[in-house]
Amino acid sequence: MERKKLRHFGDDLAAAVERTGSPALVGLDPRWEQLPSSLTSGVGDDWTTRARAYEKFCREIIDVVAPLIPAVKPQAAFFEELGPAGMVALANAIRYAREKGLLVILDGKRNDIGSTAEAYARGFLGRDGQSAWEADALTISPYLGADGLEPFIDVASSRGAGLFVLVKTSNPGSHMLQDQELATGTVYRRVAEYVEQQSQLTCGERGYGIVGAVVGATYPRQLAELRTAMPQTWLLVPGFGSQGGTAEDVAPAFDYRGLGAIVNSSRGIIFAYNRPEYRQRFGEPRWQEAVEAATREMIAQLRAETLAGKLTRK
Amino acid sequence: MERKKLRHFGDDLAAAVERTGSPALVGLDPRWEQLPSSLTSGVGDDWTTRARAYEKFCREIIDVVAPLIPAVKPQAAFFEELGPAGMVALANAIRYAREKGLLVILDGKRNDIGSTAEAYARGFLGRDGQSAWEADALTISPYLGADGLEPFIDVASSRGAGLFVLVKTSNPGSHMLQDQELATGTVYRRVAEYVEQQSQLTCGERGYGIVGAVVGATYPRQLAELRTAMPQTWLLVPGFGSQGGTAEDVAPAFDYRGLGAIVNSSRGIIFAYNRPEYRQRFGEPRWQEAVEAATREMIAQLRAETLAGKLTRK
Repeated sequence: MERKKLRHFGDDLAAAVERTGSPALVGLDPRWEQLPSSLTSGVGDDWTTRARAYEKFCREIIDVVAPLIPAVKPQAAFFEELGPAGMVALANAIRYAREKGLLVILDGKRNDIGSTAEAYARGFLGRDGQSAWEADALTISPYLGADGLEPFIDVASSRGAGLFVLVKTSNPGSHMLQDQELATGTVYRRVAEYVEQQSQLTCGERGYGIVGAVVGATYPRQLAELRTAMPQTWLLVPGFGSQGGTAEDVAPAFDYRGLGAIVNSSRGIIFAYNRPEYRQRFGEPRWQEAVEAATREMIAQLRAETLAGKLTRK
Repeated sequence: MERKKLRHFGDDLAAAVERTGSPALVGLDPRWEQLPSSLTSGVGDDWTTRARAYEKFCREIIDVVAPLIPAVKPQAAFFEELGPAGMVALANAIRYAREKGLLVILDGKRNDIGSTAEAYARGFLGRDGQSAWEADALTISPYLGADGLEPFIDVASSRGAGLFVLVKTSNPGSHMLQDQELATGTVYRRVAEYVEQQSQLTCGERGYGIVGAVVGATYPRQLAELRTAMPQTWLLVPGFGSQGGTAEDVAPAFDYRGLGAIVNSSRGIIFAYNRPEYRQRFGEPRWQEAVEAATREMIAQLRAETLAGKLTRK
């Protein structure tokens, strides 16, 4: 039997972006109030049947987007809201996305220290029976410091998985701590330096490590600053679309090959049937077509306005 | 029907501490390798049967500690490590603890913004059918800033539930961000000021709000500083026992009534049968007796060395 090469999340993501010619990431954020009525009608308010509707919603989105994009980002919060039943739906959605060839970045913003951080990492990261959830990557939060991040990095690198550390987030309140000035620069730069160091230590064949950074599309100046400060770090850029970020805003996040960044949209894609321009064209019964149109539109915008236009489909 | 008064987490915690005469908190951190062999023998490596062993372990601990302490703190990571089956065990452990009269502080260190933060809060906080998980309080992480904390606070206060925000954590690496100097003081003081403000806004009859702070027992100087800076904030103090914190170290965390702080021990209690002094006395087959002895010992230490000795049992 041929010995299988260890996966490397940085390289796997580069390959997936090039294969699809797209740096777009779709967020799986099921929200009960916004689900198409075909999925909610007749469903009571018990968590188990709602969780099944969430799973069906995710599967239908995955069916539409799998040929178009490299990865999906399920948001743990919406599944956790439904209790253990929601967690079953999350596990099934992750498995289905993988079966369809997508990378899965679980947005859980987990954080803890020592063996507790390790338990999160062991539980979420790694495919093929390596973990219970089998995600390819996980978002993590840095307030606890380096010994809160290291256990995640150790587990991820031993399993070929990836991480995205919150650095400069898309919300207005990110000012409160992240933008504060230390003697050496801002708090977010302090985190960025640590992340870049870890990315260098885990650098793959395509020039990026396994430890990425979350940097909001809503702060284009900081996005450009951090692209320069973190040359070997994949950037996960939320805040595109509904939160106000445009393709022009995220342009500085890409390297000369069109790699180095993936741009997330959640509501703007998965609830596209609610957007005025799509509501008339498709309406709620054809919500899946609205998902496809919105995904294709986002990809076209990213390719037109950013170096993602340089991506060679392989 | 008598109209039920809305619960208030700050008051409920004060009442529970006074009822038991104890500010001790026991962490439910099931770790497979350390579980008594009576619970692990014959159990394979599938997640469902391991999760059942975790649940049984937690139930037996709860049976022992329920008459002695005000609250337990399940650590989400260890349950999540086992996938959806682990989450069922977590939900069952929370329910069982509540049935036995304990408050439940879920240690999940969740964090996100806007409606996503709200989904976490709605899912975890609030008893009597208000939420899927029915915890009394949740730990949260502040890196995202005020708009990452507000949605949690809004949901918690509408449901009489509580929160504990990471302020100065017990690990050595907490230096990396938390101790950094801003123009106005350290990063952790910036968070502490926000938390105290929120505690004042949600202050109950016993002088404490619903928004607590996590401050490690391993930093007695900062514990004293923060007790003074946050007079209306409940402190959750980890790091006692296994991590090196002593009853003397945590003494400054209490107010003149013996209230204002709860001190957590996890491994030192739940795996007490592994501690040299208990191993001989009880041995593994009588691990539950070791849990009881270790809990009683911790309570006695806290009462002897701290103002917890002033607690009036009501």
